[in-house]
Amino acid sequence: MADPRARLLALDGLDPLIERGRLQWRALAEAPPGADLVLLGLVDGVPHFVAVPDRAGNAATGRPPHIFGLLAQLPRDEMALYGAARAMVEWHGRHRFCPACAGTTSAFKGGWGRQCGGCGAQHFPRTDPVVIMLAEHDGAVLLGRGLGWPEGRYSALAGFVEPGESIEEAVARELLEESGVRAFDVRYVASQPWPFPSQLMIGCHCISEGRALDIDTSELADLIWATRDEVVAALAGDADARFIAPPPFAIARDLLEWWVAG
Amino acid sequence: MADPRARLLALDGLDPLIERGRLQWRALAEAPPGADLVLLGLVDGVPHFVAVPDRAGNAATGRPPHIFGLLAQLPRDEMALYGAARAMVEWHGRHRFCPACAGTTSAFKGGWGRQCGGCGAQHFPRTDPVVIMLAEHDGAVLLGRGLGWPEGRYSALAGFVEPGESIEEAVARELLEESGVRAFDVRYVASQPWPFPSQLMIGCHCISEGRALDIDTSELADLIWATRDEVVAALAGDADARFIAPPPFAIARDLLEWWVAG
Repeated sequence: MADPRARLLALDGLDPLIERGRLQWRALAEAPPGADLVLLGLVDGVPHFVAVPDRAGNAATGRPPHIFGLLAQLPRDEMALYGAARAMVEWHGRHRFCPACAGTTSAFKGGWGRQCGGCGAQHFPRTDPVVIMLAEHDGAVLLGRGLGWPEGRYSALAGFVEPGESIEEAVARELLEESGVRAFDVRYVASQPWPFPSQLMIGCHCISEGRALDIDTSELADLIWATRDEVVAALAGDADARFIAPPPFAIARDLLEWWVAG
Repeated sequence: MADPRARLLALDGLDPLIERGRLQWRALAEAPPGADLVLLGLVDGVPHFVAVPDRAGNAATGRPPHIFGLLAQLPRDEMALYGAARAMVEWHGRHRFCPACAGTTSAFKGGWGRQCGGCGAQHFPRTDPVVIMLAEHDGAVLLGRGLGWPEGRYSALAGFVEPGESIEEAVARELLEESGVRAFDVRYVASQPWPFPSQLMIGCHCISEGRALDIDTSELADLIWATRDEVVAALAGDADARFIAPPPFAIARDLLEWWVAG
């Protein structure tokens, strides 16, 4: 923090401030007095920080509809840096108190943890593993439309990994709960951080025993088995495609592209 | 809870009570009055619960040295059930207060969440993804000995996935931080829950550019490159093996067995 070159990420609420396609940085002295600072890392030897806004804890969590448009302006390394900053700022804002004793916590370890002034417990940022999966049966994949989603939008099913289960068990349980489909041959494909607010998306593929569906209507409006041709048309954005594909940046889209590519 | 057949897991502190190689269950009425109950699930249609002990929040976290001996007595499905119960009980014990507003929380959703009586925020069990990896170079793998470990004990390097990074990026960062090794071709191998208190272990393999080491002495006492023959001898428990292999149940042992099997 004493380095005069130290930079501070410019934010508008939780959104990045972007000019000419790049994140904007200020002098560290522009941080609000008393704000918690998180060291994002060194870029070419220069320390880069983000400050935790006073009211981050009250900001709406989840993915705001405009964020993809902002992210699309950034190079990939800055997108990742912003993602880490956003997740950390949200975590600090929601963890000002110790869940074990209700004492007041304060940031330590360069902002990568909070320690309780009461019981001394140390708390670290949480990252929630989520499985997201393409179940395949005889040349088609299972896609769902969540409650309240725009008409026509379908994506891969997903859910949080629960205590006591492996990634492969989580895939099988989520599929069974949401669709009634029994999966086998679960296979890891790719992963991606998703800082809205703190997910680690773990993309998988599996094989289904059949196509019979038992839809969980508390979470889903519809389920379809989409053929390869239907997925290709949706990814291409064809006007007469059977469904609207997940947007860029969503790992569900990468899973569909991986599947179509064979 | 009204089902007269409902069962309650018998615990001694956080340890399982085991008789004739099976978990022990009591009538649900034997739960301490007012204790939070977590629904573990239905076994043959019968609801099975665990009660949160009053002082779980003060129990030592981490893996107690005797737990492997207890787990080894159980069939695999009961081992998994106990793992989920232990993770849930520890989480409840350490989350009696709202980290956002310091209000008192109470269990909801059958014990799979806690809700704040003050601000209404809902909190869910945390599962911390941890990458654990075998870095390979020219027929040998990198193993480390942690500070304070018994002499001769070596295992795969590991670390928590941080906000803003993928599984593959976490593997590369942890290896670089702990050993100075630069990794490429990161590949997912297997995963395993590790409820001491709440990790999801994600086992990976990668290739190293070379064997030069820059050891992180704040975490590690030693690093070695172990050849296939040395790993085979350690897994066999040979008296003259170069190192002592990780114990059964540790995913590090599975990674070594997977690697030796080619």
